[in-house]
Amino acid sequence: MKNKSLRIIPIGGLGEIGRNMMLYEYGNDILIVDCGLMFPQHEMLGIDYIIPDFDYIRKKREKIRGIIFTHGHEDHIGAVHHLIQEIQAPIYATSLTIGLIKVKLRRNGYNRKIPIHVVKAGSRINIASYKVNFFHVCHSIPDSVGLGIETPAGLIVQSGDYKFDHTPVDNWPTDYAKLVEFSQKGVLALIADSTNATNAGWTPSEHVVDQAFEQVFNQAKGRIIVASFASLISRIQQVANAAIAHHRKMAIVGTSMVENVKIAQKLGYLDIPKDLIVNIDHALKLPDKEVAIMCTGSQGEPTSILGRLSRGTQRQIDIKNGDTVILSSKIIPGNEEAVYSTINGLFRRGANVIYQEIAPVHVSGHGGQEDIKLLIHLTKPKYFIPAYGEFRHLKQSALLAKQTGIPENRIAVVEDGQVISFKDGKMRLAEKISTSLVFVDGVGVGDIGPEEMRDRESLSRDGIVLIHINLNRKTGSLHGKPEIASRGFTATQEAEEILRQAQKPIVEAIKRSNGNLERAITKTMRGFLYKATHRRPTIIVTISRI
Amino acid sequence: MKNKSLRIIPIGGLGEIGRNMMLYEYGNDILIVDCGLMFPQHEMLGIDYIIPDFDYIRKKREKIRGIIFTHGHEDHIGAVHHLIQEIQAPIYATSLTIGLIKVKLRRNGYNRKIPIHVVKAGSRINIASYKVNFFHVCHSIPDSVGLGIETPAGLIVQSGDYKFDHTPVDNWPTDYAKLVEFSQKGVLALIADSTNATNAGWTPSEHVVDQAFEQVFNQAKGRIIVASFASLISRIQQVANAAIAHHRKMAIVGTSMVENVKIAQKLGYLDIPKDLIVNIDHALKLPDKEVAIMCTGSQGEPTSILGRLSRGTQRQIDIKNGDTVILSSKIIPGNEEAVYSTINGLFRRGANVIYQEIAPVHVSGHGGQEDIKLLIHLTKPKYFIPAYGEFRHLKQSALLAKQTGIPENRIAVVEDGQVISFKDGKMRLAEKISTSLVFVDGVGVGDIGPEEMRDRESLSRDGIVLIHINLNRKTGSLHGKPEIASRGFTATQEAEEILRQAQKPIVEAIKRSNGNLERAITKTMRGFLYKATHRRPTIIVTISRI
Repeated sequence: MKNKSLRIIPIGGLGEIGRNMMLYEYGNDILIVDCGLMFPQHEMLGIDYIIPDFDYIRKKREKIRGIIFTHGHEDHIGAVHHLIQEIQAPIYATSLTIGLIKVKLRRNGYNRKIPIHVVKAGSRINIASYKVNFFHVCHSIPDSVGLGIETPAGLIVQSGDYKFDHTPVDNWPTDYAKLVEFSQKGVLALIADSTNATNAGWTPSEHVVDQAFEQVFNQAKGRIIVASFASLISRIQQVANAAIAHHRKMAIVGTSMVENVKIAQKLGYLDIPKDLIVNIDHALKLPDKEVAIMCTGSQGEPTSILGRLSRGTQRQIDIKNGDTVILSSKIIPGNEEAVYSTINGLFRRGANVIYQEIAPVHVSGHGGQEDIKLLIHLTKPKYFIPAYGEFRHLKQSALLAKQTGIPENRIAVVEDGQVISFKDGKMRLAEKISTSLVFVDGVGVGDIGPEEMRDRESLSRDGIVLIHINLNRKTGSLHGKPEIASRGFTATQEAEEILRQAQKPIVEAIKRSNGNLERAITKTMRGFLYKATHRRPTIIVTISRI
Repeated sequence: MKNKSLRIIPIGGLGEIGRNMMLYEYGNDILIVDCGLMFPQHEMLGIDYIIPDFDYIRKKREKIRGIIFTHGHEDHIGAVHHLIQEIQAPIYATSLTIGLIKVKLRRNGYNRKIPIHVVKAGSRINIASYKVNFFHVCHSIPDSVGLGIETPAGLIVQSGDYKFDHTPVDNWPTDYAKLVEFSQKGVLALIADSTNATNAGWTPSEHVVDQAFEQVFNQAKGRIIVASFASLISRIQQVANAAIAHHRKMAIVGTSMVENVKIAQKLGYLDIPKDLIVNIDHALKLPDKEVAIMCTGSQGEPTSILGRLSRGTQRQIDIKNGDTVILSSKIIPGNEEAVYSTINGLFRRGANVIYQEIAPVHVSGHGGQEDIKLLIHLTKPKYFIPAYGEFRHLKQSALLAKQTGIPENRIAVVEDGQVISFKDGKMRLAEKISTSLVFVDGVGVGDIGPEEMRDRESLSRDGIVLIHINLNRKTGSLHGKPEIASRGFTATQEAEEILRQAQKPIVEAIKRSNGNLERAITKTMRGFLYKATHRRPTIIVTISRI
């Protein structure tokens, strides 16, 4: 036993936001914690989402003893349907998380039976070499847990997404006692949520949102429309509470949100009276003052319900004067333009729009700087590993740990792929494994790589110009004129004129060329077009020999 | 006289951030105030920048009596070289603003003589029917002014970009006396900067930045690199002050910043001792503790100095452990991903990075909610027109005006193109004129429109597939095989396989078709590719008849 080491392997989510996935490896036993998806950045053109790189686990398929999920948000469960295509292992999670995973699998067409274990927060489960303690944490979805993983090398605490909320929506605070119990046993390492490590102070309680809702519901004279994430189950409860208090019926629009509400209600995580929820057709017939509608689209997605409302293209509902729209969610970095454009559109159509910048209608589910420091003092870890965040968040979290008294050489600021090894109570950075971005685009998983992305980027910047020439198979001389077409290059009329003028230099290049004809034409055309427009469209030359 | 009305015409910057331009029209006299550029949003693929629509002024070329600039930032002067290609009229601005305009014109190759008038803040200039009062305001560039425009229809106050800073860098506070003087004369309408209308409270003084710099310079053990906008002249002064106090030499890198510093120094707007500034080669030879470098790239532009430093591709300078990098500027909305990626890169290369989220190394130059309310109380306008901002900012600013006691029907929340008419002391919304986005891409101005943008968007999403077929000129039957190529569609190997399989359905479509062959092939190919990949690449078919 003494010779073996515990290896912690961050596959995704360390040094980036989203697609969280971490492995624990001890001898022949591997545990997977979470498997989420990441939303694409702007430069990832046309990509639907990004999943963790399964390269490492593919090689160690036989050793995987279990898959644990800490809570039901997309950045922690969103790639589960890709993962179970690769490996067979039992899944462990709390009741609501399992419910949301099942919804996800069903929506993606998986009906195959997989071993699933529902665990309760507060319980301890034996999985191979590990004893896993699931402890309750507050987050913006009910039934979230952190993990105390007892390994032969020592006790590792992984916080999961959390904040210290003393007045959470479900009145279930973070399990402080368990954290102290861990510290009494001795925590070898703490892996801590650092998403909000750059936010000074404490993250406010969800209760703040209740107060903001109260004010908005009090003042609203017409309909109220609340947009949020489909998986922000606690927020749905809060809207329901406000609707009840203000004698409004509630309608939910959007498949994913309807499905999530159904499962959360069924499992007892939403406390909503039966007659509160009406369908949208019914809601639209009620007096405006008696309606609260909840929907998705808070990230300004153009095809979402809110996106369509902001442009007046939603089939059933049209914004009218007197409507109040609440965007009750954060803006995921990169979505600012889309969200603000949606807000501006809603204002233009006559709505009063309330969003985080002007009222606290959303608070984060992640702990701020003081939360992080408290977590450290409660658990008293020997080593500290900041997790879940961009590199700058990890650096800032490390600074906080240092302030609480953890020596710098016991803090590991590492990113995806850096294996961390523990042996004889000592931490060591081991080898690095590859953890590339795996793009999902349509039905394709991983078939779009850097080269295709560069092509798309180039196409998007200056468009494309196509040249086709026919050569006489025998003489090799040009048959007819070059055919030239373009897309996204310049306005149609101007393009026609420029491309017409390009005929001559191309014909000359063909005559001159005595090597690679395609390259000669491309080069000539590139020079000609840059001189004429200062643009560099993608150029494709096709040649037929006839 | 009585029959004429004053018309205020927002051409750019009302309901959007950037490309500010406003007209005043009375009878045969038109005044232009500002002519800025706007940075493209992500969806504006490949665009360099956007300028105001000159359509209206082109028609009234003969009536333009003057062009006034309020200050030297790009969103107020950035399109001047495009404007003076269209019209001939004298330019009026303060000394530093004129200096920066001249730099801009020279950089864009304009040496033609244009009538330019340097005006002093506090002075009053007669221009045709107007008496224009230039009054000093605090902003993040020296020599900024607001305008009190006395027109035959009444006095209009246009704030320009401003905040009420009691401890500005140049010790020159906003001209409160002039604002009160206006209110005593009677202000018909106030056009007020509303950029920060969603920010509660007062915007902090620039002095806050001095304190933050003091702390960072105190703690820095190695080199200090400060990134900011080239036009943030006040910030350059603040860095110089900190460098002097901490016995560091200062080097400036980046053509535009170097040029701006030169002109600001020459005109007396930068107070920098001669021996403080050294060239970069010299700076790099000094001990690390004796160097402060200032550069551009605070928006994470990949080709900027800071962008290259973050990836280790800057020719002269390489980040090393112990460096402190300060990003002393706001993030322009939409640039979040690029800026954070730069920050993460700098951290990875060993720098300690200080940015607005973790320390007040930047404050806004625009007044917040309390500034806006004070401006209203100082000027006591009859009518209120919120300006410079997205629609949501204008709405919020209107709310503030209402709170100060201005009746709702005297507030005009309008966007670009909405002509506002004043006659007999009454405001009326007149007609709307077209003010489209004019894209500048390479040397092309306005040749890229919505159609080309849609093409680029489509190309960027799923790439392109090209099909060329040769038909026998006489029989109309297919000659040889269809040639198929793709870019940015899917990984090369997979694409080859899919495109090979596509040969058959294309050949069949050609045989079947008895109408538009191009359309038949496109339709077949689209269906085939969607089924195979769930993607919708752009499809282009070219046909030669041989």
